[in-house]
Amino acid sequence: MPDPRALVFDVFGTVVDWRSAVVRDGEALGQERHLDVDWTAFADAWRSRYAPSMDRVRRGEIPWTKLDDLHRASLEELLDELGMEDLTIAEKDHFNKVWHRLDPWPDAVEGLTRLKRRYVIAPLSNGNVSLLANMAKRAGLPWDLILSAELAHHYKPDPETYLMTPELLDLRPEQVMMVAAHVEDLRAARENGLRTAYVPRPLEFGRDREADPPDPRFDLVAEDFVELAEKLGA
Amino acid sequence: MPDPRALVFDVFGTVVDWRSAVVRDGEALGQERHLDVDWTAFADAWRSRYAPSMDRVRRGEIPWTKLDDLHRASLEELLDELGMEDLTIAEKDHFNKVWHRLDPWPDAVEGLTRLKRRYVIAPLSNGNVSLLANMAKRAGLPWDLILSAELAHHYKPDPETYLMTPELLDLRPEQVMMVAAHVEDLRAARENGLRTAYVPRPLEFGRDREADPPDPRFDLVAEDFVELAEKLGA
Repeated sequence: MPDPRALVFDVFGTVVDWRSAVVRDGEALGQERHLDVDWTAFADAWRSRYAPSMDRVRRGEIPWTKLDDLHRASLEELLDELGMEDLTIAEKDHFNKVWHRLDPWPDAVEGLTRLKRRYVIAPLSNGNVSLLANMAKRAGLPWDLILSAELAHHYKPDPETYLMTPELLDLRPEQVMMVAAHVEDLRAARENGLRTAYVPRPLEFGRDREADPPDPRFDLVAEDFVELAEKLGA
Repeated sequence: MPDPRALVFDVFGTVVDWRSAVVRDGEALGQERHLDVDWTAFADAWRSRYAPSMDRVRRGEIPWTKLDDLHRASLEELLDELGMEDLTIAEKDHFNKVWHRLDPWPDAVEGLTRLKRRYVIAPLSNGNVSLLANMAKRAGLPWDLILSAELAHHYKPDPETYLMTPELLDLRPEQVMMVAAHVEDLRAARENGLRTAYVPRPLEFGRDREADPPDPRFDLVAEDFVELAEKLGA
């Protein structure tokens, strides 16, 4: 098995911990506005609308819509349901951009920095380009370039998103390795010819839900990005 | 005039010195193959085919073709004309990728590193994504993300390439400043609502050709990227 040349990363849950940041910014908003909200449940409810909102784009029910706008529509629905629709537009805009302000898992920056010495590294996320660029700048994620579903106008797991990567990097699919904490993302990457590294993130949904078991067809399994760097000789 | 949020850079001639690298790698090839070639004239001849080859794409005479492939077609023509067509495919492939191995002007990395602290910085080049990513990795160009004509499937000065930038960065056009050593690139950026910084590179074509005088409508003129950083408070 020859060495991959580029590693592309799922981001939400794999590189960054989305749940803690939504809870953190929700609590700050709640304190300012004296709101009595379970922000952990809020975070999970917001996230649970993520896949269905992209599925509407994937099925062609709505035209291409960037993730910031899908997040914003889900936020409006959720605020309505909770009777919180009197937040100002500026407050909603700011809270919606919490997805730009997610913090990396503790091993992520060190692991990526090591991997970057040997490989081209990029996100391959359903997050839009500005979301990923703002996140990287704030969190110090040392990407070589930013790849996003927005560039393909197709959300993962549509094949177009995975296939865009070797095309733009001028590599063969098997020279690109997808790194993700989600087995479905990796199975789709594998079906499109990419190599696969599974890095389970058991705390993504808190302590009550376990990570999926690895699929024996994945090329690599690592506990975190530092172990991934070690296993890949970086 | 409010501060821009992102700076996007022309690359060939503005960030990197393409001529010296083509001469350097041409001389290495010539020595190995005992070729008697004026490599400076060769570099200029190769570069002189650049705009006409993109114009064929821009006029719709040929479908979208990435710059590596336009460079390669021009190289074949030039080698034929000079009776050098007996180079191996591997030699031609390697020489064609010299455009991935260009060196930055002496001020470029320092200036970009300073500008990155305050602004989102990205190339906005007719070079394809892999060319720009490989170049950045080799030369240490600290881009936040890579923007390329390849993502718009339109070569500058087509409006689509400039307009893609505020769209992907979620900014208004006037929040994006184009930095270039070529007045035509800046005039097109300006017509599409971007702000403009002119950094003349008088040595781009050697000592015999002078840089264009600045257009009084440009927002800024700087001698190099370090002066640009100073003028922009970075």
